[in-house]
Parts: sequence; structure tokens; C-alpha cells
Amino acid sequence: MSQPISCTSDPTLDLAAQLISRRSVTPEDGGCMDLISARLKPLGFTLEAINRGNTVNLWARRGSAAPLVCLAGHTDVVPTGPVEQWASDPFTPTLRDGMLYGRGAADMKGSLAAFVTAVETFVARHPQHQGSIAFLLTSDEEGDATDGTVAVVEALQARGEGIDCCIVGEPTCVNRLGDMVKNGRRGSLSGRLTVKGIQGHIAYPHLAKNPIHLAAPAIAELAATEWDQGNEYFPPTTWQVSNIRGGTGATNVIPGTVDILFNFRFSTASTPEGLKSRLEAVLAKHGIDYDLAWTLGAKPFLTGRGPLVDAAMAAIREELGIETELSTTGGTSDGRFIAEICPQVIELGPVNATIHKIDECVEAAALPRLSATYCRILEKLLT
Amino acid sequence: MSQPISCTSDPTLDLAAQLISRRSVTPEDGGCMDLISARLKPLGFTLEAINRGNTVNLWARRGSAAPLVCLAGHTDVVPTGPVEQWASDPFTPTLRDGMLYGRGAADMKGSLAAFVTAVETFVARHPQHQGSIAFLLTSDEEGDATDGTVAVVEALQARGEGIDCCIVGEPTCVNRLGDMVKNGRRGSLSGRLTVKGIQGHIAYPHLAKNPIHLAAPAIAELAATEWDQGNEYFPPTTWQVSNIRGGTGATNVIPGTVDILFNFRFSTASTPEGLKSRLEAVLAKHGIDYDLAWTLGAKPFLTGRGPLVDAAMAAIREELGIETELSTTGGTSDGRFIAEICPQVIELGPVNATIHKIDECVEAAALPRLSATYCRILEKLLT
Repeated sequence: MSQPISCTSDPTLDLAAQLISRRSVTPEDGGCMDLISARLKPLGFTLEAINRGNTVNLWARRGSAAPLVCLAGHTDVVPTGPVEQWASDPFTPTLRDGMLYGRGAADMKGSLAAFVTAVETFVARHPQHQGSIAFLLTSDEEGDATDGTVAVVEALQARGEGIDCCIVGEPTCVNRLGDMVKNGRRGSLSGRLTVKGIQGHIAYPHLAKNPIHLAAPAIAELAATEWDQGNEYFPPTTWQVSNIRGGTGATNVIPGTVDILFNFRFSTASTPEGLKSRLEAVLAKHGIDYDLAWTLGAKPFLTGRGPLVDAAMAAIREELGIETELSTTGGTSDGRFIAEICPQVIELGPVNATIHKIDECVEAAALPRLSATYCRILEKLLT
Repeated sequence: MSQPISCTSDPTLDLAAQLISRRSVTPEDGGCMDLISARLKPLGFTLEAINRGNTVNLWARRGSAAPLVCLAGHTDVVPTGPVEQWASDPFTPTLRDGMLYGRGAADMKGSLAAFVTAVETFVARHPQHQGSIAFLLTSDEEGDATDGTVAVVEALQARGEGIDCCIVGEPTCVNRLGDMVKNGRRGSLSGRLTVKGIQGHIAYPHLAKNPIHLAAPAIAELAATEWDQGNEYFPPTTWQVSNIRGGTGATNVIPGTVDILFNFRFSTASTPEGLKSRLEAVLAKHGIDYDLAWTLGAKPFLTGRGPLVDAAMAAIREELGIETELSTTGGTSDGRFIAEICPQVIELGPVNATIHKIDECVEAAALPRLSATYCRILEKLLT
């Protein structure tokens, strides 16, 4: 049985449905922040738009005392892909077999709804709670992520407003709600390498120097290198070539150069400087003449055991009845920006099996349970 | 002193100048064959146009007896490149400091002129010579070479008309006229290789299989392989990658495939079949999943010591006073097609230092000497 949702008995499910119906393909917000602002204002939040370029960002804070617990997320969603392949319209929230379907259901409008209802419950129960609560919302996470969370972080940093604990609502779970919390992310270090040879006619290789032949043994060695073994929280650092391009198109010419793009995903067991010098040593060992431009896309961050991680693990145990797993795998998230001004950052949201796919969905019953879990974390930190 | 040539006292230089002034950028003939035909007809040659597509080819034969000695060449030239960089107009034959300048002066209108005047002298001296003489001319050598010499060879083959000896007028000399004769050419065997992996996100390399990483050690091994040591006449076989291309353009995606174009230039010490199986064994050893399409661009050919090579070496010694060197290096030539119907093929022409370049030129004094050398070879073979 498939049914569009207009109004349901559960407030989290209802708010998630309202958010899904607002088309907010990145970098559009689609009115989501207005909807959330309208819910936060009566709770005593001070709302502040921190926009940059065309990007809409919201910083909302309730209270001025420490500690400040921040709930962070994004209202934008990735494009739908071919709409005709969806079983129901991606912007018409639809309940089917216990699942709520729609673009953003899992990434991350379900989490946003759960944040809001969790805070509504928490404030109702504890109107005089300790510390402060904030929302940090952006509509520029799924795209370039240049004018979103990073802009808010820079604004807060400029005025000396730090965050003590932050929960990012990214969908982190694998099979069931609560089974995984991300307590850090690897760093990302990219290189654009040009290996230089000498162009020539393929019939006279002794007069040329083939840069593809020069690069091959170095790539082979780099691909086989163990960069580190990871550590308690991180898997080992990986190195991958994403693009290689060499040749004039002509089949009788040895090219003068070959271009190689590569990327490290690195743990806190390695440093960017260490990885750079080790890679360059391999190139030097192979006698390669090259140009190399480095880009540090993201520093790694890590939140070890401590108040926030312990609160999340205990809340999941008590509310959801399972032991969560701490993990640092996966791509980058806006957590990397927040970590610049916040010593404790975790990510916790619903099951991510369908994110970015056709027929994205989230278990309907998981949303009120996620709300209750967020609320319990707030209670452990602020009461 | 620079002077355009209109008429000179030497018939070979004069004919070369007339040919240079006929613009015949490949695949155009520019009227060169008409000019040559007008010279051959009075000598008793039977002229036959063997055209294919838009390509003009000439087969001209004097006599019907064996042996048949063929003089082969092309009237087309490569493009001029930037005309303003030439010291004099490329289609205005110009004498300067003892050199004849113009596009095609060395490659190979000088040789064509020397062929014609050599035969004029030879026929005048030996009107009742033994055997037969033929000219095989095309205007499709510098381009695709699909409708030129190969078309004439196929026509001759179809009617059972073989050639006993052939001199191709390609510019073969290095420093001075007569210092090098090509008595064969390497073969060319190309491959288009697609190494197959599994596409995936660069943050999850354990779920993907990077084809660039798979290919690198195999390329390294192939580049370091000694395929053969060559033999008396051939340098060792070489293997070169001309193009490599892998990656989606995105820097966070491990590509599903990488495409590699490579080429063997191989001696008669290796066979195409042997090279194919050895290369494929290296790919298999590295556990690579691949598609591979082979193209045999040219079989190698070789004319060992025998009547033609001996006649050329002796004629050079007697006429030019030097010992020539036999060589099989360099790119492919139309000799590869003629070798299909002719057991003895050599290439002999002027110094090739400026071919395909700005300010192409040939030593003016070399042209009558080249004519005399060709004539002496004919005398050794046909009198």
C-alpha cells in the first residue's frame, strides 16, 4: 500500500514529510530553513542568517551559557536522477511498506526533523536547561560546500564564538538505527602530477623519453605502499589514482608528458607533510622529472572517548537497545569544518543504504526513535 | 646569394625545380606525374594510370622481359608548416649557398628527378638493354597511404606482374650522399588495450578495483622487457605506449577502465604472433582483466646481400667514392607494400636532415651525382 503523506500522527514523520515536499536540490534551500525557523523561534532561539554568495545559512542559538551543544546539518539534497525510475515522485513524501520515500528522506531531512522535535521535547521538559543549544544549517553541503558550513564557522571564529559539542545529522547507520556513529573522518590530500619526458617519433624511441614508461614503476610502487596501519579509530591511509592522461592522440608519437591525479585518504596516523615527502621520495628514487601541485582538501578530525561520544553511546544503548560502533570511514562531511572550532564532533543519523540513489527512503518508525535518541543525548549533556 | 631557379644547366636540378614548383601537398599530385609522364613517353614507356579513390598513381613500364627493375616514389609532400618561417617560399625552388630549397626538395622530388634523368641517360646509352624498367609513382604516401602504392601492388598482383628489384627514392642518407641505404624496415604492430577494474568512490577503495593500479606494474614490466636482440640487419624490437587514458575527470572516483595504445617496432628476429603471446602472458601474469585489439600495421621486410644490394653498394663506391651502410632503422615506407611482390627492395635517396621541416633543402650538387648513381645501378642490373 502506497500513500502520500499529508498529515500523520507522529510529529517527526510529519515534519520530515514537509521538508521532503520542499524541492531543495543543491544549492537550493526550497524554504526548508523558513519552516525550521518557524519551529525554533517559539522555543526561544535567536535566529541569524549567515549567508555567503547565494547560499542560505542559518545559525540559531538558545541560551548564552556554556557548554554549547550544536545540531548541524544541511537542507539541500542531491539531484533526483531520472524521475521516471522512481516508484513515486521524489518530492512527494510517500509511505510504503513502513518506509518513507522521497529525495532527502535519509540524507538528511529525516535527521533535521528529528533534531527539531528532539529540541521541542527537550525544551518542554527542561525549559531551564544548562548551557545552550544551537542549530547550524546550510543549503550548500551536497555541492561545492564553499559557502555553507565553512562560512558560518568562519563567522563564529571571527567573533570568538566556539562550540563545545556538535552532532551532525548525516546518515551514519548501516543496517539498523544506532548501529554506527562516526567519531571522525579521514583527511583528503590530492596531487596533480605531471611526469615529464621528451616527445618523439615512436620509431625512434632512443631519441625520446617516454613519460608513461617512467611513471609506471613509480605508480606501481606507490599503489603497493603501506602508508600507515591506521590506529584505534582509523583504517590505514589509502592512495588512489583517479585520472591518468598522456598521449597526443596520434599512435606514432611518444608523448612529452603524462598527467596523473591522485588522492590520499589519510588517518591521524600520518601527516600531510609526511605523506608528501614520502611520495616525492618515491618519484625521486625512480629518477622522475616532474611538476606536482598539492591540495589539502580536508584535515582529518577525531573525537575520541569523552563526554559527547559517551553520551551518544549511552543514549543509543538506552533508547535503541544496541551497542553502537564508532567509525571514521567514508567520505568527507561538513564535520571537518566544524572541528576547527569544536573539540567534540560526531555524526549520527539514520541508515544510509539508499542515499543518493533512486527511491531514497528511511524507515518511518526510525524517525521518532532518532528524535528520542537526540533528546536523550541533550539530556545527558545539558541537564 | 639567393636565386630562384627557372632554368639551369643541369637537367636533374632543373627537373627537381620544376617538380618543387608544382604544389602537391598530400594527397595532391599537382601535375607532377604529367610532367614525368611527358619525359618517359618518348623513352618508350607504356603509361598506365592505376587510380583508386581520388588518388593518382602511375605505373610506367619499358620492355616486357625479365628482370624488371622498378623505381618507386611519391609526388606528394607534407604540408609546409608556417610559410612565414621559411627563408624563401616553399614552392619557389631557390638556390642558396649550394642548397636547393623547397618543400619536397629532399623528400622526394630530388630523387624523382634523378630517377628520370638516370633513365634518360641509361636508355640513351643502352637502347636495347636487358630486362625491363618501371616507374611506380603515387601521390598518397605522406597521408593515409591507403590508395597509393598498395593499390598499384594489388593491381599488379592480381594480374601476376611481379617486380624483381625495386629502388625506392626515399631520402636515406645521414651526412652525405651515399652514406646509407635502407635494405629493410621494421614491422609495426599496434595494440589497443583496455584494462578493466571496478569503478567506485575513492574513499572506499576496498569496494572498487583501480585499473590504473592494476596496469602500472604490467606497463613497467613490458617497458623493461628485452623482446629480442635484433639481428645482423635489424636493431632490437622496441615497445612503446603512445597514449594512456583513464578517469572520469572527477577527482573522487576510481575509474572502471583505463585505455592504453601501444606499438611494437619489430625486427625479423621476432614474429607478430610471438610478440602478441608474450605481451598477453605478461598481462595474465599480473592477473589483469582486459580487452585487447591488435593491428598489424606493417610486416617487416629485409633484402639481404644479393644482386640489388651488391649493385647499389658497388655503384655508390664507384660513383661517390664511399662505402655505404646498410640500415633498417626509421619509420615505415611504401617499401613494405612493394616487398609483397618483389623479393629485393632497397631505399636510396639524398640526405634526410631537413625533411618535414621548415626550409627543407637538398645539396644541389648531389642531384646529378644521385642520378649518375641510379644510372650505374641500372647498368649493373640490366646490361
